Amino acid sequence: MARINENYRKLQAGYLFPEIGRRVRAFTEANPGAEVIKLGIGDVTLPLVPAVVAAMHAAVDELGTEAGFHGYGPENGYDFLLDAIREHDYRARGVEIEAGEIFVSDGSKQDSGNIQEIFGSDCSFAVTDPVYPVYVDTNVMAGRTGAAGNDGRYAGITYLEATEANHFCPDPPTGRVDLAYLCSPNNPTGAVTNRASLETWVAWARANDCVLIFDAAYDAFIQDPALPRSIYEIEGARECAIEMRSFSKRAGFTGVRCAYTVIPHELTGSTAGGDRVAINPLWARRHATKFNSVPYVVQRAAAAVFGPEGRKQTGEQVAYYMANAARIRDGLGAAGFTLFGGEHAPYIWMRTPDGLSSWECFDRLLEAAHVVATPGAGFGAAGEGYIRISAFNSRENVEAAIGRIRDAFGD
Amino acid sequence: MARINENYRKLQAGYLFPEIGRRVRAFTEANPGAEVIKLGIGDVTLPLVPAVVAAMHAAVDELGTEAGFHGYGPENGYDFLLDAIREHDYRARGVEIEAGEIFVSDGSKQDSGNIQEIFGSDCSFAVTDPVYPVYVDTNVMAGRTGAAGNDGRYAGITYLEATEANHFCPDPPTGRVDLAYLCSPNNPTGAVTNRASLETWVAWARANDCVLIFDAAYDAFIQDPALPRSIYEIEGARECAIEMRSFSKRAGFTGVRCAYTVIPHELTGSTAGGDRVAINPLWARRHATKFNSVPYVVQRAAAAVFGPEGRKQTGEQVAYYMANAARIRDGLGAAGFTLFGGEHAPYIWMRTPDGLSSWECFDRLLEAAHVVATPGAGFGAAGEGYIRISAFNSRENVEAAIGRIRDAFGD
Repeated sequence: MARINENYRKLQAGYLFPEIGRRVRAFTEANPGAEVIKLGIGDVTLPLVPAVVAAMHAAVDELGTEAGFHGYGPENGYDFLLDAIREHDYRARGVEIEAGEIFVSDGSKQDSGNIQEIFGSDCSFAVTDPVYPVYVDTNVMAGRTGAAGNDGRYAGITYLEATEANHFCPDPPTGRVDLAYLCSPNNPTGAVTNRASLETWVAWARANDCVLIFDAAYDAFIQDPALPRSIYEIEGARECAIEMRSFSKRAGFTGVRCAYTVIPHELTGSTAGGDRVAINPLWARRHATKFNSVPYVVQRAAAAVFGPEGRKQTGEQVAYYMANAARIRDGLGAAGFTLFGGEHAPYIWMRTPDGLSSWECFDRLLEAAHVVATPGAGFGAAGEGYIRISAFNSRENVEAAIGRIRDAFGD
Repeated sequence: MARINENYRKLQAGYLFPEIGRRVRAFTEANPGAEVIKLGIGDVTLPLVPAVVAAMHAAVDELGTEAGFHGYGPENGYDFLLDAIREHDYRARGVEIEAGEIFVSDGSKQDSGNIQEIFGSDCSFAVTDPVYPVYVDTNVMAGRTGAAGNDGRYAGITYLEATEANHFCPDPPTGRVDLAYLCSPNNPTGAVTNRASLETWVAWARANDCVLIFDAAYDAFIQDPALPRSIYEIEGARECAIEMRSFSKRAGFTGVRCAYTVIPHELTGSTAGGDRVAINPLWARRHATKFNSVPYVVQRAAAAVFGPEGRKQTGEQVAYYMANAARIRDGLGAAGFTLFGGEHAPYIWMRTPDGLSSWECFDRLLEAAHVVATPGAGFGAAGEGYIRISAFNSRENVEAAIGRIRDAFGD
């Protein structure tokens, strides 16, 4: 009998988004005439920008010629992409990152799910609550937790509640943990962590010998240039933090697939015997053994995002989505809903009206407004009583959704 | 102190191919005039076929329009690709596979490395020796082995020696194991497992409640239509086998990245308490949590491989490489080298001349012939005394390499 990994049996129901997909499919099958507006899963809607399209065509042409053909790529990414990342995502912000510290991948979901593999199976870890489910589920699968309680929380995890009182930016835990996941701008709450808070986190991580896993997949949505976009803008972060970035939302790459992870050479963990061990080579070994580089065409597409046209065009898309976010904040705010986020992130975190639970609110929105949002409770116990509204849609649909939500909850 | 995964410290040196890359770079830097011919890493050299190039251009154009844009794809692959796989890879061979049994991914390396995650950490497993290093290394990382001995073999693994005596197709182990990895046509030996042998393996797996992990990444190179291409052509395999296929070699996708894994609904494992549990939903959960679908453009490219033009054009590429393999067999065979494989696989497994070790032969080939091959010992202890020569190159380079190898080892 081949024994299965029984940790999988601890997982709660399905992964959140497939569950939403199932409910939406059931609704649309029962209501074929309903025009459902999706502000749920957080998928982009605008087409790829012309600079990216042109780069992909050129790359496809190359692959069709003997001289331009590219087979297996360099494990960590082509230099043309690594150089562009170093220049535009870091040097432009005053941060110096070496090429050997960057690992190009096919998604931040994958990276944030896989990163735990290079740490010990008995590592303790902290997450915010609510939280992107991948951080938790992949640790459950790896056996770092006990069973889930009635509130959906797993034994053994340190949960840091993100609440209205702390502006959805919790402080570090009072006790120490080995790993802590931080996401800013935050999915799902749309909150952004400011410099002072990041400094507190870095100081705490260094004092407690903790590794911060900093997910900056939404950094392009930060509107205030004074807010840090990278954890490495904080002094000392190179000794304690791993950072992840994605092209999914900043350039509409959810169906193109490109992201990267940065692991500074200074970052170390330890063996049971107390030896300090560099983390970067561990991830390099995993990347070389369990991954096989991002498609050449995709890396060319990502590099085009950094060109002058690419920056301008993707910047306009981000601005479009952020204008949607402002419309949602204004439109629903004026109608009396209580809203958070949406200022430096494409997500609005709405307190559910009428004391509804998150899933009750989800069902009401779907049935009465034909609008899909994401139940806050799906992101953790502290998300109960909230619902996440995504700004990824056309202006027209956003305006229609605002009207329908107001009507559905009107007196 | 964040504890690292200390299993990584058991791993032998680097992953094989990066190590080869380092030696080749050192040689070419020291000998800038040398024209090195690479018959090593097993990367394809012919450009993408026109049908694939056309499909990718069309898909890129779609992504550049509002109506044709595709964001997140269905987790397991688009129906257009799943249907093509079912029709051409299975129904055409008399095998019926459901769409829900197929999981499209970005590579068989990834799939064969990740599959162990859904099994218990104490599962025993068998591999052939020599073997594709990913099967072993990923289990080492997961803690299913002890330390490596002087011969590079890890404690706790059942190694099945592939030798000249058993035509490089070992029988199942005499004791039972939970998991067994089989690769046919084989990387690295180029041997193909015939129907009788596969029947033996399936019968053994069923009798011993073992899960076979069948890697058919090279199935397109099988020349004899009577040889099975899929494990599911063997009665009873649906109850005991997982199968992996790839577009990397059959269609030149090493830099495009597409593959798939099949897990039949009948396949089960067990809990510690003895409950039978279906394996398919476990992999589905992993796929949904730690992966995020293959790029739309890549899935369109893969589907084009199955069209009438795609089949014809990729078939011609496979024939070209197999003609290379025949030339290597003939050219080096006539010169007195002892060769295996290369009849239903793009790899020739050559006994090293002059009693050289695999790495000595590698260095001699590189220095004297400026030819890169892959040391058999890099694939396991039983690969010592052999070297793998790949047929992936131009006819011209293959002919030149044959001449140079003959000269380098001539009297």
